[in-house]
Amino acid sequence: MDYAHQQLEREKVFRDPVHNYVHVKYQVILDLINTSEFQRLRRIHQLGTTSLIFHGAEHTRFAHSLGVYEIARRIIESFEENFPSKIPGDGLWDDSEKLLTLCAALLHDIGHGAYSHTFEHIFGTDHEQITRDIITSDTTEINHVLEKVGPDFPEKVASVINKTYPNKQVVEMISSQLDADRMDYLLRDAYNTGVKYGTFDLSRILEVMRPYQDGICFEMSGMHAVEDYIVSRFQMYQQVYFHPVSRSMEVILNRLLQRANEIFSAEVTHDPQTPYLLLPFFHHDFNLDDYLQLDDGVLNTYFIHWKRYPDDLLSNLASRFIDRKPLKSAKFDDSTKDLLPRLRKIIEQSGFNPKYYTATDNSFDLPYDAYRPGKKQIQLMQNDGTLIELSSISPLVRAISDRQSGDNRFFFPREILRPEENVDLFQPEYDEFNNHIRNDQLIN
Amino acid sequence: MDYAHQQLEREKVFRDPVHNYVHVKYQVILDLINTSEFQRLRRIHQLGTTSLIFHGAEHTRFAHSLGVYEIARRIIESFEENFPSKIPGDGLWDDSEKLLTLCAALLHDIGHGAYSHTFEHIFGTDHEQITRDIITSDTTEINHVLEKVGPDFPEKVASVINKTYPNKQVVEMISSQLDADRMDYLLRDAYNTGVKYGTFDLSRILEVMRPYQDGICFEMSGMHAVEDYIVSRFQMYQQVYFHPVSRSMEVILNRLLQRANEIFSAEVTHDPQTPYLLLPFFHHDFNLDDYLQLDDGVLNTYFIHWKRYPDDLLSNLASRFIDRKPLKSAKFDDSTKDLLPRLRKIIEQSGFNPKYYTATDNSFDLPYDAYRPGKKQIQLMQNDGTLIELSSISPLVRAISDRQSGDNRFFFPREILRPEENVDLFQPEYDEFNNHIRNDQLIN
Amino acid sequence: MDYAHQQLEREKVFRDPVHNYVHVKYQVILDLINTSEFQRLRRIHQLGTTSLIFHGAEHTRFAHSLGVYEIARRIIESFEENFPSKIPGDGLWDDSEKLLTLCAALLHDIGHGAYSHTFEHIFGTDHEQITRDIITSDTTEINHVLEKVGPDFPEKVASVINKTYPNKQVVEMISSQLDADRMDYLLRDAYNTGVKYGTFDLSRILEVMRPYQDGICFEMSGMHAVEDYIVSRFQMYQQVYFHPVSRSMEVILNRLLQRANEIFSAEVTHDPQTPYLLLPFFHHDFNLDDYLQLDDGVLNTYFIHWKRYPDDLLSNLASRFIDRKPLKSAKFDDSTKDLLPRLRKIIEQSGFNPKYYTATDNSFDLPYDAYRPGKKQIQLMQNDGTLIELSSISPLVRAISDRQSGDNRFFFPREILRPEENVDLFQPEYDEFNNHIRNDQLIN
Amino acid sequence: MDYAHQQLEREKVFRDPVHNYVHVKYQVILDLINTSEFQRLRRIHQLGTTSLIFHGAEHTRFAHSLGVYEIARRIIESFEENFPSKIPGDGLWDDSEKLLTLCAALLHDIGHGAYSHTFEHIFGTDHEQITRDIITSDTTEINHVLEKVGPDFPEKVASVINKTYPNKQVVEMISSQLDADRMDYLLRDAYNTGVKYGTFDLSRILEVMRPYQDGICFEMSGMHAVEDYIVSRFQMYQQVYFHPVSRSMEVILNRLLQRANEIFSAEVTHDPQTPYLLLPFFHHDFNLDDYLQLDDGVLNTYFIHWKRYPDDLLSNLASRFIDRKPLKSAKFDDSTKDLLPRLRKIIEQSGFNPKYYTATDNSFDLPYDAYRPGKKQIQLMQNDGTLIELSSISPLVRAISDRQSGDNRFFFPREILRPEENVDLFQPEYDEFNNHIRNDQLIN
Repeated sequence: MDYAHQQLEREKVFRDPVHNYVHVKYQVILDLINTSEFQRLRRIHQLGTTSLIFHGAEHTRFAHSLGVYEIARRIIESFEENFPSKIPGDGLWDDSEKLLTLCAALLHDIGHGAYSHTFEHIFGTDHEQITRDIITSDTTEINHVLEKVGPDFPEKVASVINKTYPNKQVVEMISSQLDADRMDYLLRDAYNTGVKYGTFDLSRILEVMRPYQDGICFEMSGMHAVEDYIVSRFQMYQQVYFHPVSRSMEVILNRLLQRANEIFSAEVTHDPQTPYLLLPFFHHDFNLDDYLQLDDGVLNTYFIHWKRYPDDLLSNLASRFIDRKPLKSAKFDDSTKDLLPRLRKIIEQSGFNPKYYTATDNSFDLPYDAYRPGKKQIQLMQNDGTLIELSSISPLVRAISDRQSGDNRFFFPREILRPEENVDLFQPEYDEFNNHIRNDQLIN
Repeated sequence: MDYAHQQLEREKVFRDPVHNYVHVKYQVILDLINTSEFQRLRRIHQLGTTSLIFHGAEHTRFAHSLGVYEIARRIIESFEENFPSKIPGDGLWDDSEKLLTLCAALLHDIGHGAYSHTFEHIFGTDHEQITRDIITSDTTEINHVLEKVGPDFPEKVASVINKTYPNKQVVEMISSQLDADRMDYLLRDAYNTGVKYGTFDLSRILEVMRPYQDGICFEMSGMHAVEDYIVSRFQMYQQVYFHPVSRSMEVILNRLLQRANEIFSAEVTHDPQTPYLLLPFFHHDFNLDDYLQLDDGVLNTYFIHWKRYPDDLLSNLASRFIDRKPLKSAKFDDSTKDLLPRLRKIIEQSGFNPKYYTATDNSFDLPYDAYRPGKKQIQLMQNDGTLIELSSISPLVRAISDRQSGDNRFFFPREILRPEENVDLFQPEYDEFNNHIRNDQLIN
Repeated sequence: MDYAHQQLEREKVFRDPVHNYVHVKYQVILDLINTSEFQRLRRIHQLGTTSLIFHGAEHTRFAHSLGVYEIARRIIESFEENFPSKIPGDGLWDDSEKLLTLCAALLHDIGHGAYSHTFEHIFGTDHEQITRDIITSDTTEINHVLEKVGPDFPEKVASVINKTYPNKQVVEMISSQLDADRMDYLLRDAYNTGVKYGTFDLSRILEVMRPYQDGICFEMSGMHAVEDYIVSRFQMYQQVYFHPVSRSMEVILNRLLQRANEIFSAEVTHDPQTPYLLLPFFHHDFNLDDYLQLDDGVLNTYFIHWKRYPDDLLSNLASRFIDRKPLKSAKFDDSTKDLLPRLRKIIEQSGFNPKYYTATDNSFDLPYDAYRPGKKQIQLMQNDGTLIELSSISPLVRAISDRQSGDNRFFFPREILRPEENVDLFQPEYDEFNNHIRNDQLIN
Repeated sequence: MDYAHQQLEREKVFRDPVHNYVHVKYQVILDLINTSEFQRLRRIHQLGTTSLIFHGAEHTRFAHSLGVYEIARRIIESFEENFPSKIPGDGLWDDSEKLLTLCAALLHDIGHGAYSHTFEHIFGTDHEQITRDIITSDTTEINHVLEKVGPDFPEKVASVINKTYPNKQVVEMISSQLDADRMDYLLRDAYNTGVKYGTFDLSRILEVMRPYQDGICFEMSGMHAVEDYIVSRFQMYQQVYFHPVSRSMEVILNRLLQRANEIFSAEVTHDPQTPYLLLPFFHHDFNLDDYLQLDDGVLNTYFIHWKRYPDDLLSNLASRFIDRKPLKSAKFDDSTKDLLPRLRKIIEQSGFNPKYYTATDNSFDLPYDAYRPGKKQIQLMQNDGTLIELSSISPLVRAISDRQSGDNRFFFPREILRPEENVDLFQPEYDEFNNHIRNDQLIN
């Protein structure tokens, strides 16, 4: 039998806390999982600095990738049984897309790196481009496996992830408002943080999902399950993804890598604290293989090295990150933003360089994907076969779509609020600072 | 108010997936959590190599330590309300032991290090001794916090963990057949591996737990809950802790560190692959601070460095560990153990040094603590106040106590079973090897 | 010790699927549970006709009453520990209210009867008045138990349930926007129907609940848990309490009792189908003891008797109810309500008396208690001690409060839609009827 | 399309708390559910008197029957996909058995009646025979539906339930050591009682279940899931099915029906308390239709009538049952059984007729089906395709199979232990009685 259709003699199952079991039958899938590039995802946390706030959130992109694969597998199983295409173009499920879809589901995050968001910001990497490179470059094990299926198979997998693949059913299964990716990460993040509000009824959603001419829609009888998914997603953003302390640790990480970049891009050193595996990035001369050596533990290891580095800013920021000393923050809005220069001034007088120790940030910056009008919406199929858009019949969803969420925050060292020791000569400034903060907000 | 009794203005809660919330009211406890030694536990996995088999099992000793603290806190809350001591020596709960118990619960694993079991074996460290050192040595932040409670407080905390503290109620709450430590790790490991059989009814056990003159016992009405805990523990050992693939990854780790020790204890090098933070251990000259720099990510980072090291054994073993290429294994017993020399010979002929690529191991070596006669047993209190030992009235528990479990396994490279490419000149040996294995066992 | 403070020698626990265990320590509470009036609640379903749609929803008012008691007990336990009143009028919890609160929680539904809503409508009973009577009339076992606590104790218990008791903390624990009653029924109804969306984090809400001068409020840190409760409540109304088929079975029940009333209030008969225990109600001459003989099984038994009664309407309606043959329904609004006379006419032509076989009903009639402006709102306590109303900071809650939900429905026999056998002379009318219904709505 | 293959236009789903949803696609299945005989199962509790001890256990045989159907449906779905028969006699799944299996699963308990065990004992009915009659007698709606599939179809359905059908795969799916029936009732009883120990991993068991030549077996990789099922079953028997208070309520029910039989089989009366629907049974002249009028509510209604009946024994036993006044009990064994005559004598002296107010009972009488040698065992399929019996490799299962469980109990009125009022002339007898009971056992 050709490689694309080769089945394992005995199905392989991976125990998964969210989906109970992940089932693998294709040799191709097992071979992809066993590549070093995919195994590396075991060492990249799904939620980056969030685990410093929700201590259970240590789950990895490896687990998430298996989870997305498993959800896609279950969707396809249902489509095969209930909506098999009879003639091309009938808008039903074409089973020759199966392996392609499974591979794309498994590999959709393969280019993610250590602390992706911040790392990209400092070093100019792009995880979406790297995903594409890993899949299509002939230097990777992933590519070798995919090539064995067919010479154009790597490109096809990449095009599904890029959303340029023509069959929208395949694309929307992996990325849309209600796709295998989002369903897995919401359930998995909820499970591991312990934020129970993030759960929804996956098995019901799988039952009411169906293909149609232009992609994927949901049967009307599943409206409440879909609605609950939207509410859960909203709650996860409010409580987990926008958590102010997590954003504060991101600020520290950003400043730490920025300072390291200033130091190590200039120096050529053989000091033991030298970040051996990061040097190509400091020198702006890295290749795919360099990128694939990195993981969260590698970065943390260099941060531990740097706690002893003879640059006060670097060692202090490294300690704050490793030993978890978050900045404090307060919300501000248009009526209070004029206070910021004065507050930065006080911070500087107290001995903290505002460039490294303050920040403003709003949660709208984050990849927030609340259910919104502009984008392609979730479609429900009525009894008579016509489609209706979700928010037009769900008051709950309409409520969420209508409104802005998120907030602006000003971050600063907590030492300003509670001077460690005795009253000192900066006490008047400390008092002034304190008087501008109440109930987690700046006030005039 | 003195430091020992200082309460936080506002209770601090940590979201926990197993216990929902961990509640902290004492300033002492919050200060201990915020030390760098305790924060380091975020970077030590609870289950070591097990996460390579159960991909959800990425939870850390940080989470577990908070969990043990929380269970102890709940037990004490119940004891305070239902069994407060009226006069010294009445066998009831003396609330002046509260803070001591909570600190011991929180810190009981503070000396654990990266891949503890194997690391200790190679480098001769002792995590129990290190726990004691971290608590009582005046170089640590932990010790500074405890000292503020009282000059003899660190020693008292250490003595509870060492089981030498006179009040057996305090000691048994932290370590006995049914203690806060075991209850947390079973629930947490079950939650994160997804092995649902490992769960039991914690809230019911907390309700029926009670102090008595010589320690802690359980009310008869809770017999079924206690019984279920014993069964769950048994199942977790069978399915998770003794998992043969996990043991195989331990074997590789052992051989990898052993080979690294052979290389780096001899060399003095400034090569970039030098394991900077491990050198004190290779040179048998380390102090507590050296130990506290290490974590799982640091070790993994050096393993990644070593994948490129110019020693074939080191680089190959590092790749096998980092890229997860487990050894295979088969059970053997007295009737088949005489096969081992011949099998090792075949392996050697195929090009694998048996010293590094084979092992025998039995699961009895592991810290297996099945419910057994010899040790202090679980006591149930009958209606008339007399005690009766659990296994004397539970057929299920008696069944488990009676029997030996575990198995002997022989580990070897999987290449022997499936020669990667075409038939080669070793084929007869491969065939011979294969013929000795059936249904996961050696056969004659 | 006096009866009010008498504790059981050994705490009694009731296994409960929602709260795990219900704990009883007071002799008074156990004695109340053991009265025949309270045991009768075992034979009254919590959700009436809803179990005909959600087959798991067979849970009883007995279980719910124990659940409300248990939640109140846990709230009080938390208040006692964290917010004990020091001086009268300090706005904290006065523990002398404990037994009163527990009794009121346990007995708040004691007057509910078989199929309450419909029964009251036909026979003019009032379950709130009956609750008061059971508690204060000296003919009941309940009253005898309460009298033993003190001569004015029955009146005090009744006043808490009536909301006239002066201490608003006690009253709001049993009835307010977020009280023990609503929390138990939402969780219990969700558990038994299997509608998972109805769950919320009870343990967290209990932790953030606190007394204040004018009742009960919630700490700001629990905002998300409270918000989730409101969303869950909304979802339960949408999916369970307003379920159209359940409302249709209520319509049949109403018509059945109405017809029985027409027949049996006139006749004096000794026929075996005579509803012995219902006669006092048909004759408008019943006392409390008569009421307490009734339960769901008694009514159903008479309905079974009536399946053979020689009145076509009565026997047909009884069969429809007992054998579950619901009416169909369709939504209508102002634009389509003018169709109703014509549709009723068609139904009459087909041989169904519209008085017994059609109905209009809107879900706003039901005791719907969505979170709404007009009533006393949920208050959150901010860091500085000031209160803020929930919907002013929660977009989700504001969304729900703003809008109208519910629908108008027209109910009719399903025979109109699918004439059982062959085409008959009414076919043109059937077709006309069908053409007015699409996607569960009337259309012009 | 013929009736046997007729699919619903739109799949019908029933919300189920245990299985989330029950899916119905065949018109035949929906028609069976809508018969009056099947709807009657809504009014028969699954666990009889057990709900008087576990107040959540109000679930019905209707829910259980749907659950058994749903599990069978899922097993068949898996067999169809993974083990479809290619040629007759290949030991794989023959899909032409599908509808038959589903019907048998749905109807396996259709003959159960109100308080089956006790009712049968008094009135000589046999629910297995009645099941057969309902299916094959042409007076029932069930039979009419089945007849439409084919003239021999009712007999085939009955033969599957009788275990005489030749295809053992079909038979063992419905009744064997690990079948759809047992799996549903264990999960459902655990869910509704709240006894969490009764749960096991259904989805995993479904995955490892497979057909073979002589019936159904399980893949070796699922051994732990099967083992856990056996342990859970054991725990449910210990904690729920053998609960002594539940057995005591069965004793009262037995005595109550026995007394009623003595009264009503003799009398011909038109008294309003006459048990109209029970008369055919008292007169030993009943037909199937008479049987199908009965349900738990009907019996309870007559018991409520009888609370006022002018026979002291009948009215007292009815009150004890309806108002839940259980007998007390104590364990006895060979060493203490000689005490029983003396204890009965004391009871008689205290004014209770021992014939109606005492009983001995052992839990071995109950339909206890612990995993035992004699019967057909659970078979596991090893890697090489050979079968091995479960207990030969599972120490846990062996432990349970080896031993006897259950106990002998003596039941008596609780008034003997706590004479209600003041000391009376029987005090010496009461004291003697009390001295023979300690820790729930008779002692000499």
